[in-house]
Parts: sequence; C-alpha cells; structure tokens
Amino acid sequence: MTQKANHLKATQFDLIRHGQIDGPAALYGRTDVALSPEGWQQMYQQTNRLETFDNIISSPLRRCEAFASELAADHGLTLQIEAGIQECDFGEWDGIEFDDHSQHWPLMTSFWHDPGPNTPPQGESLASFHDRVISTWQTLCKQHLGQHNLLVCHGGVIRQILAHILSTDWRSGDWYSQLQIGYASLTRIIVPSHPEAKPSVAFIGLPADFRRNDIDFE
Amino acid sequence: MTQKANHLKATQFDLIRHGQIDGPAALYGRTDVALSPEGWQQMYQQTNRLETFDNIISSPLRRCEAFASELAADHGLTLQIEAGIQECDFGEWDGIEFDDHSQHWPLMTSFWHDPGPNTPPQGESLASFHDRVISTWQTLCKQHLGQHNLLVCHGGVIRQILAHILSTDWRSGDWYSQLQIGYASLTRIIVPSHPEAKPSVAFIGLPADFRRNDIDFE
Repeated sequence: MTQKANHLKATQFDLIRHGQIDGPAALYGRTDVALSPEGWQQMYQQTNRLETFDNIISSPLRRCEAFASELAADHGLTLQIEAGIQECDFGEWDGIEFDDHSQHWPLMTSFWHDPGPNTPPQGESLASFHDRVISTWQTLCKQHLGQHNLLVCHGGVIRQILAHILSTDWRSGDWYSQLQIGYASLTRIIVPSHPEAKPSVAFIGLPADFRRNDIDFE
Repeated sequence: MTQKANHLKATQFDLIRHGQIDGPAALYGRTDVALSPEGWQQMYQQTNRLETFDNIISSPLRRCEAFASELAADHGLTLQIEAGIQECDFGEWDGIEFDDHSQHWPLMTSFWHDPGPNTPPQGESLASFHDRVISTWQTLCKQHLGQHNLLVCHGGVIRQILAHILSTDWRSGDWYSQLQIGYASLTRIIVPSHPEAKPSVAFIGLPADFRRNDIDFE
C-alpha cells in the first residue's frame, strides 16, 4: 500500500558534495582525506535547510561518510553506503599536492583539457567512472521510488549524474573545469512519477552559505 | 585609473529570470506579458539577497523591464536596456495558450524534441537566437569588465549563455526541457580577470524562495 502510494509521487534526489577537506590542494579521488572543521560546518549549514529526508545515501569515503552517519543518526535513519558513488580514482596523482607534480604537468594538462582519453597513470578511466556512477544512479532511482533522498557524494559524481540527465558530453573538459560544484553545494534532481516523463534538474550547485552575498571569487 | 583597477577584479554576472507572468500557460517570446503580483514578489525576494550591483541590464520586455527599472531607481542606477537579451521569438505560437494549439501538436512535438531545425512558423531560428544572445553577451563582458552586473532576462537567454560557457549543445532538446530555470531563479557566472582564464558557472537556477524547503514538484 505504501509502495503503491509512493508510485504516485515524484522522487527527489538532493545531491550534496562533501565540504572543505583537511589537506593541501590536490586531486582527491580514492585518497581518504577527512573534512576540515569548516567543512563540517558547511555540511550542517546546508542540510539544516532541508526539512526531512526518507533516505541518506553516502560514498564510503570519510569526507562524506563521517558526516552522513552523524546526520543519519540525528534523523533516526540507517545510513546506506554505496561504493558506486565514490569519487573517480586518480591513480598515481591521487592525493599528491599539486606543487609536487612538476614532472606530470604535460600529462595533467592533457587530462584537464580532454579527460576522456587521458586517464591518470594507474587511475580509473572516465568512461568506467561514468558507467559505474550511472549504473548506481539507476539502481537508486528504482530502490527509492517516490521518496526524498539525500546523496552525500563528490563533485565528479554529481557531474556524471547531471550529464546523464541533461544529455551533455561527460567527456568534455569544460564540464569539469567551467562548472563549479562548490564544497557542500546542493544540486536537486526530480524524477517524475510518470514512467515516460524524464528526470529534470531543479538547480545546480547551490552554495552552503548563500543567504549572504559573500561567495568568494577572485 | 578606475578602469585599470577593474581589470584586476573578476567580472560577475548574476542572471535572473523574470518572475511568474500574468497569463495562461503558453510559449512566451516576443509577447509582451506582464509579471503577476506573485512574480513581482519573487523578483524582490531574490534581489533582496544580493547586496549591491554596479549595473542593471534588462531585456526590453516588460516582464523584465518593469521590475528592472524599479530596482535601478531604488539603487540610483541608470537601467541599461538590451534588445539582444530579449527572449526567442516563437512566431505564430508565441503567447497562444497551449490548449488552443491542437492543430500544431505534431510540429510542436518536433520542436520540443529537436529545436535546432524545427523553427516555429514565422519565428526566430534557434541558431539566430543563440548568435544574437552570445554576441550581446560578449559585448556586455567587455563593457562591464571587473564589475558586478545584474541581467534581468529570460529562461532561453540564460540557457544560451550557459551552453556557451560550458560548451554544451544548445541545439539539444534536453537542454531546454530537462534543465529547469525557474521563475526569478538566479544563475551566476564569473569571468576571471586574467584574459586567458575561461568564465565559469558558480551555480544555476537558485530558487527565489530557497530558504524554506518548499519548492514544488509534482
């Protein structure tokens, strides 16, 4: 009966990127860096705006999972951990401070401009990453039909899901470098209840501190 | 001196779509429909969050211009009207209530799915619209270097500028139907001061009433 009623409601996914991390500027994929105190605060600030959710789903990495498990406990929910929404694995570059990368610059420059064919050494290809995320996304849509779901995940994961829904090219370098998905920013996807209606994007990258007009830009 | 100092600062464009309009559900392009009382309120609610701007630039259509001229007066600014950021002209379909379109459905369906080659009868082609908006955008970027600019415009205009910056396909039907740009929503573009750095999108479609979690979805 509940299951049937849920079919009449749209499914809402609120995708929140983890907050600021406690580490130097680097490509963080599989590297399991923690949130900074500021990052924790950003996550609370953003999620405090959301009234309720039926499910909280998190990447297993601790910059997502540590906060998500606290939030789930606060709401009396069981946290669902999904390896499929973990960030892309950047291989030998992962977690290495940008300053220490001088010998990798030529290859890294190719990666920034055209990440499709330029996989970091020992890293995950963009195509594998995309397939993994979208396959998980499709499973989550079926699992949580008609519910309000919070996904605590990563900038790359959010961009894969957006590209899938908007039919944009997830291989394009500009999709990563020109679309900001800030720390603890919120992106909302609505999946209509009618099976033939396509999901849509309600908004992208809403900052944690938006109330005030103090978003930094250089 | 001031001009030189401005070159060191990024340029910020806040693109606000007009609020709810006072008319039945229709494609509104050149049709000069007014804002509803709710639409006026949405515009004030959204712009009250922004502290200051150096310039207010508006589409000449009154669903944008009427509010923009009040806001400019409130801020002691001269309103800049730009015909280049007027909405696409939907020709014979423009302003006609959807219910009265039964004879146009086959052509309209093609237009929704693939708007590039399917121009409404007597309307503006998507390619002309895109070129007009982007040419105006490039002029505005040069005119208002280093400043904080508010553009009061339309959903189609915002999508052209976003597609240009993110290198996505502005001919794709999904770019219009799956990306919501709500009434009075705010989209922010940052153009870095360094001439070789590319503009980026800070966020897309921030709702006017976001503080509360009451965004309607069906």
